Amino acid sequence: MKILGIVSILFAVCTFAFGQKQNVDLIVAHGIVVTMNSARTIYQDGAVAVRGDGIMAVGPRAEIEGKYSAAQTIDAHAGLVLPGFVNGHTHVPMTLFRGLHDDVTLNDWLYKYIFPAEAKNVNEEFVRWGTRLAAAEQIRAGVTTFADMYYFEDAIAEETKAAGMRGVLGETFIDFPAPDNKSEAEMLAYTEKFLKKWQGDPLIHAAPAPHSIYTCSKKTLQDAAALARKYHSPILIHVAEMKKEWEDSEKQNGMSPVQYLEKLRILGPDVVAAHCIFVDATDRKTLGERGVGCVHNPSSNMIIASGVAPVPEERAAGIAVGLGTDGPAGSNNDLDIMEEIDLAAKLAKISKMDPLALNAKAVVEMATIDGARAVHLDNEIGSLEAGKKADIVLIGLNEPHAVPMYDIYAQIAYSLKGSDVETVIIGGKLVMRDRKLLTLDEPKILEKAREYGRSVKASLGME
Amino acid sequence: MKILGIVSILFAVCTFAFGQKQNVDLIVAHGIVVTMNSARTIYQDGAVAVRGDGIMAVGPRAEIEGKYSAAQTIDAHAGLVLPGFVNGHTHVPMTLFRGLHDDVTLNDWLYKYIFPAEAKNVNEEFVRWGTRLAAAEQIRAGVTTFADMYYFEDAIAEETKAAGMRGVLGETFIDFPAPDNKSEAEMLAYTEKFLKKWQGDPLIHAAPAPHSIYTCSKKTLQDAAALARKYHSPILIHVAEMKKEWEDSEKQNGMSPVQYLEKLRILGPDVVAAHCIFVDATDRKTLGERGVGCVHNPSSNMIIASGVAPVPEERAAGIAVGLGTDGPAGSNNDLDIMEEIDLAAKLAKISKMDPLALNAKAVVEMATIDGARAVHLDNEIGSLEAGKKADIVLIGLNEPHAVPMYDIYAQIAYSLKGSDVETVIIGGKLVMRDRKLLTLDEPKILEKAREYGRSVKASLGME
Repeated sequence: MKILGIVSILFAVCTFAFGQKQNVDLIVAHGIVVTMNSARTIYQDGAVAVRGDGIMAVGPRAEIEGKYSAAQTIDAHAGLVLPGFVNGHTHVPMTLFRGLHDDVTLNDWLYKYIFPAEAKNVNEEFVRWGTRLAAAEQIRAGVTTFADMYYFEDAIAEETKAAGMRGVLGETFIDFPAPDNKSEAEMLAYTEKFLKKWQGDPLIHAAPAPHSIYTCSKKTLQDAAALARKYHSPILIHVAEMKKEWEDSEKQNGMSPVQYLEKLRILGPDVVAAHCIFVDATDRKTLGERGVGCVHNPSSNMIIASGVAPVPEERAAGIAVGLGTDGPAGSNNDLDIMEEIDLAAKLAKISKMDPLALNAKAVVEMATIDGARAVHLDNEIGSLEAGKKADIVLIGLNEPHAVPMYDIYAQIAYSLKGSDVETVIIGGKLVMRDRKLLTLDEPKILEKAREYGRSVKASLGME
Repeated sequence: MKILGIVSILFAVCTFAFGQKQNVDLIVAHGIVVTMNSARTIYQDGAVAVRGDGIMAVGPRAEIEGKYSAAQTIDAHAGLVLPGFVNGHTHVPMTLFRGLHDDVTLNDWLYKYIFPAEAKNVNEEFVRWGTRLAAAEQIRAGVTTFADMYYFEDAIAEETKAAGMRGVLGETFIDFPAPDNKSEAEMLAYTEKFLKKWQGDPLIHAAPAPHSIYTCSKKTLQDAAALARKYHSPILIHVAEMKKEWEDSEKQNGMSPVQYLEKLRILGPDVVAAHCIFVDATDRKTLGERGVGCVHNPSSNMIIASGVAPVPEERAAGIAVGLGTDGPAGSNNDLDIMEEIDLAAKLAKISKMDPLALNAKAVVEMATIDGARAVHLDNEIGSLEAGKKADIVLIGLNEPHAVPMYDIYAQIAYSLKGSDVETVIIGGKLVMRDRKLLTLDEPKILEKAREYGRSVKASLGME
């Protein structure tokens, strides 16, 4: 990354010296470029030059157009140009269980609906179609990178790559027979093969995902972590999501879930911890010191009534806090990260009874640069800067709810919608242009999703 | 209304007896018709027959098509057909102040931004353009009726009618000089003229809107109510929105805001009370007994950090509780009622730490039939039933986030978006067809909104 940055600067210097324009593959121009770089620079009439899968330069349009000549130009029509959004925690195949079943207790949801539905329906083919559906939905809402935890994760990786999306994809470790692997030995073997297969892939970051401290033994947790460290992969895990999890840990381990994970030497700058609701000041200090990334899931936490994560305090402790949709089966029920941006701010304000608790800029950071930090990919993504991957979303400002605009971050957080995302580029490649998906057969995906809906209902004796 | 119902039944009986089809103006067919009638009937392949501005019949498609012959048919393409949504509380011209200014305290927001912005910018022309912008935005999100409180409300009424929307429109009474009327005498004269002008209008319900107990004297409140009762109009008012309002009322009046209004004989089955956050069991009993409608505004209450209205308890007390967006200037920032449906459920669940606190069906009721009850128009709107006005929205199910569908109410509440609304009919008249607005010049409205954005910024010395 840094080498590419230096090379691009050298190129720019040469071009300037010799008055010749440098060739790039793509220029996105005529947009309000919200870089999310460390200075949070915004170019009112900006442009982004792309070569291969990376960003060559970002700046005022006149400057970029003066320096670079592009094979293709995309006009942002005075809309917003942003780094692609990061969905830091989800379970993509569960799109096929969307809204199954809401308005029940967590216990009923798991034992009456989700576990039976998974046992009866989840296989590799199911996972592939669910991933395609989720890719279509996420691209439409401006998500370019997502972190996932599910079963048959290698199939998810193949479908994610086919859709042209970037993924941090975690194969689940859990201490009961899963739809794919029936024992810890099988989980280890499957995951090691999975990690080896995707080493060095530009889009896919394979990972082990020990589910949680309440579904994984000490050995399972440590084996999963050891595998991750052998292959320098991230570790995805649910942490301190439920009060019961915290209470049980205090009782059984004599310490909080975070301190238990710390004691097992699981925590480190490769861990992506979803939820982090029941974390006190000591826990937050530990998470910050270990470089753990946290992912806040406001819709899920509200709909399941898990609790409210102390996001302002986590940020104050130096933790990178991203945003996630969680799975769409009875805990959201969609993958619209722009709704989570809006909700994260509103939930923090009302739960602290303080309108200043978390502002619009902060929640946009959580969906971009801090989301990238939380999944440990901030050297690659999360901002529009020379040397980073060209993950770019174009958001239109031509709907009634988009005008007038007094503050760009407030508009993104509170007024604009996933449906305003017009064009999406991932790794320099167009995956959606003017709301038309380019890497997925959307009609076929919708048809299969409806078919799965019918067969899942039948399997549960619904209707 | 009831007479029309009986006539339509007689017609149907005659048609059946003589085997002849009856002419209607419009049939909406091939949709999942979610009636929101008292039995909450859903017709999987249903249809709605419309004559003039009213509904002639609702039922299974085969039955409706067998009985009626229509000049025009609209195919719902297996999407949802719902009664139009009711936005029970807003300030539509404030669309032109959208997001001005977020993430500040309520006090700073009012005194540094909103009051100066209103003093410098609000005139009749401003109000007209703001209403047009709001009409475009609301129709796009499926709102067919809204309750408004602002200044120059007669101009708002004219623009609402021109847009083909239904409105309960309240002219503000407030004890300081307003942008339109500078004294209570002027307010009374303006409002009486306003009420007279719109008597009997099929779309516009003019009303006085005494702002609140903390901005209106006892006399102002009682004069406004007397005027409403003279002309049989509703009364719109903010009630128990803020803790300070409640504390001040306890101190100054020795009772809560609700009991103070009760003592002044303001409360009755014509009052639409926005917010109702600080209402205890006694207050809720009073509101229920007096037939007051309450309007819950989750986005606004969260973003301003006002508090959480006890919606489940209000419903349990027999109060009709509707949903509102509130104004879009720093307290939302849009007029998307489908987001409020989603938020109302999520906010109730998390604030009570109970996933069963308020379910999907309840929040859909709040945006339709209970919203109609809250604004005292449930004899006209809020459900798809013979004899009611033909206010109908068609929602597509062809986006990735819309499939599969296990529960219709959960899909509406948690997955579907304002942008899924495809076609909107108000009083039998098409106002949007396949996302194209038919009663408003949208490009011109967007252009004017941007112009106003620039002049408001200049007036406040921003940028």
